[in-house]
Amino acid sequence: MDRVDLNSDMGESFGAYKMGDDEAMLKIVSSANIACGFHGGDPLVMDHTLREAKKNGVGAGAHPGFMDLWGFGRRPIQGERPADVEKMLIYQIGALLGMAAAVGHPVTHFKAHGSLSNMACVDPDLAMACAKAARTGDWDLIFVAMPGTELERAGEKLGLRVAREVFADRNYTDDGQLVSRKLEGAMIHDATYAAERIVKMVKEQEVVSLTGKRVPVRVDTICVHGDSPSAVAMATEIRKALAAENIAIRPMADFIN
Amino acid sequence: MDRVDLNSDMGESFGAYKMGDDEAMLKIVSSANIACGFHGGDPLVMDHTLREAKKNGVGAGAHPGFMDLWGFGRRPIQGERPADVEKMLIYQIGALLGMAAAVGHPVTHFKAHGSLSNMACVDPDLAMACAKAARTGDWDLIFVAMPGTELERAGEKLGLRVAREVFADRNYTDDGQLVSRKLEGAMIHDATYAAERIVKMVKEQEVVSLTGKRVPVRVDTICVHGDSPSAVAMATEIRKALAAENIAIRPMADFIN
Amino acid sequence: MDRVDLNSDMGESFGAYKMGDDEAMLKIVSSANIACGFHGGDPLVMDHTLREAKKNGVGAGAHPGFMDLWGFGRRPIQGERPADVEKMLIYQIGALLGMAAAVGHPVTHFKAHGSLSNMACVDPDLAMACAKAARTGDWDLIFVAMPGTELERAGEKLGLRVAREVFADRNYTDDGQLVSRKLEGAMIHDATYAAERIVKMVKEQEVVSLTGKRVPVRVDTICVHGDSPSAVAMATEIRKALAAENIAIRPMADFIN
Amino acid sequence: MDRVDLNSDMGESFGAYKMGDDEAMLKIVSSANIACGFHGGDPLVMDHTLREAKKNGVGAGAHPGFMDLWGFGRRPIQGERPADVEKMLIYQIGALLGMAAAVGHPVTHFKAHGSLSNMACVDPDLAMACAKAARTGDWDLIFVAMPGTELERAGEKLGLRVAREVFADRNYTDDGQLVSRKLEGAMIHDATYAAERIVKMVKEQEVVSLTGKRVPVRVDTICVHGDSPSAVAMATEIRKALAAENIAIRPMADFIN
Repeated sequence: MDRVDLNSDMGESFGAYKMGDDEAMLKIVSSANIACGFHGGDPLVMDHTLREAKKNGVGAGAHPGFMDLWGFGRRPIQGERPADVEKMLIYQIGALLGMAAAVGHPVTHFKAHGSLSNMACVDPDLAMACAKAARTGDWDLIFVAMPGTELERAGEKLGLRVAREVFADRNYTDDGQLVSRKLEGAMIHDATYAAERIVKMVKEQEVVSLTGKRVPVRVDTICVHGDSPSAVAMATEIRKALAAENIAIRPMADFIN
Repeated sequence: MDRVDLNSDMGESFGAYKMGDDEAMLKIVSSANIACGFHGGDPLVMDHTLREAKKNGVGAGAHPGFMDLWGFGRRPIQGERPADVEKMLIYQIGALLGMAAAVGHPVTHFKAHGSLSNMACVDPDLAMACAKAARTGDWDLIFVAMPGTELERAGEKLGLRVAREVFADRNYTDDGQLVSRKLEGAMIHDATYAAERIVKMVKEQEVVSLTGKRVPVRVDTICVHGDSPSAVAMATEIRKALAAENIAIRPMADFIN
Repeated sequence: MDRVDLNSDMGESFGAYKMGDDEAMLKIVSSANIACGFHGGDPLVMDHTLREAKKNGVGAGAHPGFMDLWGFGRRPIQGERPADVEKMLIYQIGALLGMAAAVGHPVTHFKAHGSLSNMACVDPDLAMACAKAARTGDWDLIFVAMPGTELERAGEKLGLRVAREVFADRNYTDDGQLVSRKLEGAMIHDATYAAERIVKMVKEQEVVSLTGKRVPVRVDTICVHGDSPSAVAMATEIRKALAAENIAIRPMADFIN
Repeated sequence: MDRVDLNSDMGESFGAYKMGDDEAMLKIVSSANIACGFHGGDPLVMDHTLREAKKNGVGAGAHPGFMDLWGFGRRPIQGERPADVEKMLIYQIGALLGMAAAVGHPVTHFKAHGSLSNMACVDPDLAMACAKAARTGDWDLIFVAMPGTELERAGEKLGLRVAREVFADRNYTDDGQLVSRKLEGAMIHDATYAAERIVKMVKEQEVVSLTGKRVPVRVDTICVHGDSPSAVAMATEIRKALAAENIAIRPMADFIN
């Protein structure tokens, strides 16, 4: 593979509250997952993020979450009916599409946030709610999903263009899933190691588990973070390592069909 | 005039909180101004309201307000920059458009809510923020405005299709504006009187002030309320009185060009 | 037993949104569980409810819930650390105590709301968080709990005065717990039946299960609802039935030591 | 004068959102104005801030604001009735008092936040609402107010202990009031200049206006900020300059009677 997308969550500030170093990340990544006002973000932040993404040639995506600002969308909220979650998502995507129409920068992908994403990875009904939201009306958003999850299956079932995602700072189990954050070794903190590993994943189109097992996957996009100086440093390192191997960093909409 | 629109605010419930008798009003009016989640409403309520509007042949409009759930959008919030208000409105309209795409019922008009509307009636910059929001991207929403206000002027300046609105339960001053709610005689409580007066306004295309002065205006749509049993009764009375005079009640999109 | 408390949730309105018929319920019950602003309620509503409770000789209690206005505190939010929940509760109780100091009506009891209560009934750590919150600093609130739950155990462990509660409109299992709302027969809708059953529970100090099994419990307070006309009617019926048996209805603080 | 208080706003983080460098400021100031959850802050943040204030020997105060998280309490919200504002404030102070009881660190002062403070400086009814809130029930909080404002007058009228405050980073007009932020020269950015000026103000018990006019005032407490690295640097500089003049920095409760 000679090209890959780099995606990062952005636009998660709210009012006077700043979150993440979006300015730095927009120079590094090719896709921005933009918060839509429920777990973070507000109309002013969304507008600003879209404008900056456009200026930097960065693809824009909807990054909706649970209605839970205090919990930043990270609290697992049980008991939501999938049909209701779908409406929550359509609202947020629609809002971002409106902002994007004003800015003149298209929204091309969808990526669920936080607990919603975690829950949808293992719950086929929630996963289907996400997939349906991404193709509401004449929308046909690229659907970002981790390989082997219910999200991926739901996207495929609905005929969406699915972008398979790997995580730069997370270790994998032998069945190709993320090591739970509750366990030791879930997170990767070493930027150089993370960069080397990711380049290999892209070249070989596989993930390598903590125990060394190799699991073949399609790697379309790499998730990086910008919520701390060390996260920005890791993203920078990954960008350099990909360049050194002549792997082009391109917005997913350039090559996902 | 042989036809007019009847509009009412709807979809203002939020979570477990119910507001207004939307079910009754959807049998009475031809246009629903649907709250968009900032001063009231939520994605489930919006979806439900759109479905019921569609079922009842009622036109759907965006009814966005200030980000102020506790104050129900009725608190005058000073110091907002018009450019920021515009973004707040685009967010809300976009969200409703998304919900409407899912339901398959078009959003055809825009009407500002509460304090935002009151402030925009007299502030040309806020009025222009409203007008610009209503024609973001390829949107071209009918712009509901009271004759003689900055809102009307902004809509005209931008070439929007403006629907001129009169209020069934409010008295008018000699210059055709609403008597302030802080003054005696601002509100009309007698349903029969209100109905008679409104029919006359539609037929003569004028408003009659408290002192009897007649001010010629175009009357495209009549605002009625459904937030109390007596409000619903007044709306019913108006509907009957219009029918008795063979004035058809039609969604504004049917005749505003 | 010749006396019992009747309690009901109140003060759950928020801004322009009204919830429940507090005015009617304040004539019926002896204790008001007052929402504290997180799942419902606001400072104006709390102040009004406290004043009306005082006027009607109704005891006031704190009724805090999860920070989840949209879900009205009914969504099960997982992953909250008990120590954090305790702080959330202390905040809410403190706020009500402040309002009560202004009104001059003491807050005498604590009752957890919605999902928090449901979860604490079976989770000893959450239950202990509730109990600790109720005796923060020099507070020593009567702790309302259903017999046989972790809440009751936590209250006892901490040496709180525990008020044992039965539900007027809920059926019981053979082990004295509530039939899950997801099952048939969970709810009692017949006011006369509910009233007869409750009087028997108070006189015999026992609950009778759906299958007829009698489980001895202490019955200090009966939970009734006022969120619909039929709920108010049931509460009225219960009041009458208790009076007919010469069972006095007294605020729990009058007899719980 | 050989002693003065240094106060700073703190505890304004919310959920995942961080605001200000509280850790640094707690080493510099003698009083912390703690946000109470309406414009910023949450129960976890409040608890943490109280614990750290206790550990550092920093006095704790209630710093309540308008119910406006998005606007961070800085939006002027018109039309609130003073009696309602008073309830909003009592709620917030009560909540902080509850948290403080759990921590075992007393709340000793009150300082209004943002737009509420600005509005109360010139509105006697709002000012009185603040003063009344500060002495609800048996509360008797030291009332922080700028000399010459309605806030000061309201505090005096109610017999509160008033702590007169000057601002380290703001210039003054000839009548001893703050130069409006909308005007040139409102803010002082030079830390050395600010420190020298403040020391002089404390020693001479006066403010010096932009034009050089000297206005005698009582100076009990100096407001410093910690919302940027340069703000923290200015606060550090002021602390040093006071020490160099042997002016002790003491919590206001140590000397305001």
